[in-house]
Amino acid sequence: MSQGKRIVLAARPVGEPKPSDFRTEEFAVPTPGQGEVLLRTIWLSLDPYMRGRMNDTKSYAAPVPVGGVMEAGTVCEVAASDNPGFAKGDIVLARAGWQTHAISDGKGLAKIDPKLAPISTAVGVLGMPGMTAYTGLLDIGKPQPGETVVVAGASGAVGSAVGQIAKIKGARAIGIAGGKDKCDYVKNELGFDDCLDHRETDFAAKLKFACPKGIDVYFENVGGAVFEAVFPLLNPFARVPVCGLIAHYNDTDAKPPKWASSLMFATLTKRLTFRGFIVSDFANRHGDFLRDMSGWVREGKVKYKEFVTEGLDSAPGAFMGLLKGANFGKQLVRVGPDKA
Amino acid sequence: MSQGKRIVLAARPVGEPKPSDFRTEEFAVPTPGQGEVLLRTIWLSLDPYMRGRMNDTKSYAAPVPVGGVMEAGTVCEVAASDNPGFAKGDIVLARAGWQTHAISDGKGLAKIDPKLAPISTAVGVLGMPGMTAYTGLLDIGKPQPGETVVVAGASGAVGSAVGQIAKIKGARAIGIAGGKDKCDYVKNELGFDDCLDHRETDFAAKLKFACPKGIDVYFENVGGAVFEAVFPLLNPFARVPVCGLIAHYNDTDAKPPKWASSLMFATLTKRLTFRGFIVSDFANRHGDFLRDMSGWVREGKVKYKEFVTEGLDSAPGAFMGLLKGANFGKQLVRVGPDKA
Repeated sequence: MSQGKRIVLAARPVGEPKPSDFRTEEFAVPTPGQGEVLLRTIWLSLDPYMRGRMNDTKSYAAPVPVGGVMEAGTVCEVAASDNPGFAKGDIVLARAGWQTHAISDGKGLAKIDPKLAPISTAVGVLGMPGMTAYTGLLDIGKPQPGETVVVAGASGAVGSAVGQIAKIKGARAIGIAGGKDKCDYVKNELGFDDCLDHRETDFAAKLKFACPKGIDVYFENVGGAVFEAVFPLLNPFARVPVCGLIAHYNDTDAKPPKWASSLMFATLTKRLTFRGFIVSDFANRHGDFLRDMSGWVREGKVKYKEFVTEGLDSAPGAFMGLLKGANFGKQLVRVGPDKA
Repeated sequence: MSQGKRIVLAARPVGEPKPSDFRTEEFAVPTPGQGEVLLRTIWLSLDPYMRGRMNDTKSYAAPVPVGGVMEAGTVCEVAASDNPGFAKGDIVLARAGWQTHAISDGKGLAKIDPKLAPISTAVGVLGMPGMTAYTGLLDIGKPQPGETVVVAGASGAVGSAVGQIAKIKGARAIGIAGGKDKCDYVKNELGFDDCLDHRETDFAAKLKFACPKGIDVYFENVGGAVFEAVFPLLNPFARVPVCGLIAHYNDTDAKPPKWASSLMFATLTKRLTFRGFIVSDFANRHGDFLRDMSGWVREGKVKYKEFVTEGLDSAPGAFMGLLKGANFGKQLVRVGPDKA
């Protein structure tokens, strides 16, 4: 048999993950048993939520065990099949994790039609990140025409979709991103009304200037200083879908953010809504999402950008970079070629 | 003309209100002009939200100006009328404030039928506090049969209604109150499943014991140490209608509560919903509220308790006591007799 490769969690990170928290292992690529398929990974999706899985804390999903393969959504080719539902050569959406090959009993696999869209979009704009943007914005944020929607990580997988969908719904979209290149892309290519660089010292003042009528929907995927700047601008009846808090994922102690003392008071007097969500909470919206989003992508109303690193070995470094905003677009790892 | 009396805001309180923050003034009872009525106050309602109106800070309502009459909901008799919509002797719900008499152009007055229920209930169980409980619990909290609903101030105007409505809807109701007498009343008279005394040193442990399946709805009207005890017990998908924060109304600096640093994280991972509300947000539910609540009161499913102090002069002291939980039941001031 040929050799496969996988990356396991070597140690639970304290603060920022470091290279020694990951370990690469080789293994003999197995043969599928009865009812099973062998998956060969083409695309590996890296997403901020994975940082949470590296901690041994209670959350919405179980942590990755130390020594276990790092979790991830993947686009795979069926390399061999003893399952009547799948044929060799099928392209499937899977959760094969950070490895070149995996065995599956077929449960949870979804076939991808390569004719409809580039297969990498199944873990991007037409996959989990796209649906996170779609459901969080539309089902919790509920932007109305003329309202102001603010989203950080605006050049990334989720944020870029949030702002573009907000525009489709007739709202003003204000993005936040790190650096001039990303901000230019968000404004000029994605068509946001404005995009502010959170690294600038007068960021809070610029955000206020860009939102003269306040903020009606803040799609929260960052936390930290960005939220501190957004918070005083929230209008009465503002909605805050809480999707992620990447600024805090490496926190080692629970530091009360400066704004925390005011949070509940503002919730009361401004009648704010804060609602946490995970994309799977809206599973019944998957049909709506696929119909709308694939249409918008086809019509050019929603654009997306991919940021690719080559080879499974690049995954730990790419992931550490993702947590610092080093990526420019949806972070993908090219693990193998489209066709073996 | 006879003399009237009113209590005005003499100074903005710093921290706890003190007697010198109020001033009593006398005035000649006026005669209504064309289209106006003269109101004679029978019942004055004291409610925690009034503390907020004493501050010069932006909130959902304008502050009472220094020198202005303290605001309040009242039950009044029409003492004289030059308005075709009202006759002398009519009993009306008004916002006449802390005074014995007031002039009104009739706008915002609602006639009360004394045959249907004691007229004081118009500022209690069948009025603003009752509707606050009804809408916050049902429209935001959405308790399901078998779920656990927790509410503080459980012997008070809002809390007592919250727990009893939760029971009507098939949920478990756990109250929190200050002192054994109130807790006994909440359990034995109001029929809550349990009631904990927040003054006991092992309160948090007892609350946990009383909620073995966690908390699905926390009706927030207190904040502070009670919320700190509730917070770790919130179940995934718990709902927190944010109605009031009486523990913080006298705060002079914004102290980050201990739990604040964890708040947004838990909102995300547990998919919590925090939603602030003011009863007027649900004005379109007033018909539903009156139909349901008057039925429940008639059937004995919702009981209420009134805590009355005598005479307008008692209002400042009663209000200062209310903020410390000195009342046992809905706080009312008997300003005048039912019939002049």
